[in-house]
Amino acid sequence: MPTARRVSESVNSNPGSGQNPRDALSRVRIVLANPSHPGNIGAAARAMKTMDLARLILVRPKKFPDPEATARAAGAGDLLARAVVCDTLDQALSGTVFAVALSARHRNLGPQRLQAREAAATILENAEAGDVALVFGNETTGLSNEEVQRCQRTVFIPANPEYSSLNLGAAVQVMSYELRLAACGGRPIEVTRTVPFRSPPAGSDDIERFYAHLERVTIRTGFLDPKQPKRLMAKIRRLFGRTGLERDEINILRGMLDAVERAGERR
Amino acid sequence: MPTARRVSESVNSNPGSGQNPRDALSRVRIVLANPSHPGNIGAAARAMKTMDLARLILVRPKKFPDPEATARAAGAGDLLARAVVCDTLDQALSGTVFAVALSARHRNLGPQRLQAREAAATILENAEAGDVALVFGNETTGLSNEEVQRCQRTVFIPANPEYSSLNLGAAVQVMSYELRLAACGGRPIEVTRTVPFRSPPAGSDDIERFYAHLERVTIRTGFLDPKQPKRLMAKIRRLFGRTGLERDEINILRGMLDAVERAGERR
Repeated sequence: MPTARRVSESVNSNPGSGQNPRDALSRVRIVLANPSHPGNIGAAARAMKTMDLARLILVRPKKFPDPEATARAAGAGDLLARAVVCDTLDQALSGTVFAVALSARHRNLGPQRLQAREAAATILENAEAGDVALVFGNETTGLSNEEVQRCQRTVFIPANPEYSSLNLGAAVQVMSYELRLAACGGRPIEVTRTVPFRSPPAGSDDIERFYAHLERVTIRTGFLDPKQPKRLMAKIRRLFGRTGLERDEINILRGMLDAVERAGERR
Repeated sequence: MPTARRVSESVNSNPGSGQNPRDALSRVRIVLANPSHPGNIGAAARAMKTMDLARLILVRPKKFPDPEATARAAGAGDLLARAVVCDTLDQALSGTVFAVALSARHRNLGPQRLQAREAAATILENAEAGDVALVFGNETTGLSNEEVQRCQRTVFIPANPEYSSLNLGAAVQVMSYELRLAACGGRPIEVTRTVPFRSPPAGSDDIERFYAHLERVTIRTGFLDPKQPKRLMAKIRRLFGRTGLERDEINILRGMLDAVERAGERR
């Protein structure tokens, strides 16, 4: 067992106003209770960091620190370095206002059961009042009934009923992802950047001129028999009508048609 | 390199009616392009199985089969055993009607970019018409621009902009989770109205053959200078990628191109 740091000093943070999504996420503790495989601890750290979570707490990890944890953490070594190690779940939850236990199983005596997405929203709501925790059990044995009862809710990740066993790191990834989405109001924190090649939408006159040009060329090449048009242009209109043609695209298409006409004249 | 199986025989499935959520999920191929670490292949298989996905396709995996893949797959060894190994992404996508590339990066040449949740809904919608694919790149280098352009959309998992590097298996877990939720969760009840002229969606092979044909004709007519292609084909792919081309439309477009070629020969 690694030495436990003084939890009361190192685990608690100051609750803030919860205005900024990252403020709320900074009050989420990810607690791994009795993890067996150090690789999963590293994977959990990496998963957390990708989703703006930073506070990893380990209750009696079998092996930690460990090179396997460091390797699997990849660029999230800083989270491992700041991870807090505790002897009991009570220590890990000390100072929290709300805790949720991940558990695939139904428990007869357990607290209210939420699906991942609704649990994420509930956790974030509670994070406005102070620190919150999401507790994951051992890879094989999960959480004991006593551990689950330390929490106010259980959460399950909806899964294949015949094989619902997510890897620990993968479960942390899914829950962290849902937490971050919940914090950002379902919208990614991302500035919408310009779409490559996008140009302003073409006007209807330009579009009509394109259709007329295309019709001329299809007649000239012999593809369209004007005596038996067979709704060709209606089909073409349906196709391009779905795209929302842009100005540059009209220029490209008409350029192609010009080239076909010029090639025909040259010969 | 492991021996590639005959893809045309082993990859395709029969599109069904899409009533049962599992029917739609059974038409989703998870394609790992050039994965380096066999552990991630195993983790992907496990992630898939927890979410009712079963069809894993590997394009030139560095090491497979491998004990590390088997170990990380845990109870999903059956998916590994049935995994199809291909030499090219084209083989992996053969017979699909829709493909989405996972890519954290913005691409100047890329197709429309969707967030994970909306991408899952879009993928499932398209799965009603036939096989669909979700393509993941190499752990370090991701997907090339050419690989991305084989797909109709890109998808990103919203993440910490300062550290958005999800582990490959974790990314497969998040996307599989979203796909299963999209399949089981309240899909919008959509009244299928009769659309005039509608035909089944074109397959990726047909679409690729159309692009190749168009390129040939634009070169022949002098519109495209192969020495200075100026991203013409990327722009063309963007235009037609937005439409969702149908089989009859491909026939019309290729018929037009044939007529241009024949007209050139006659003169």
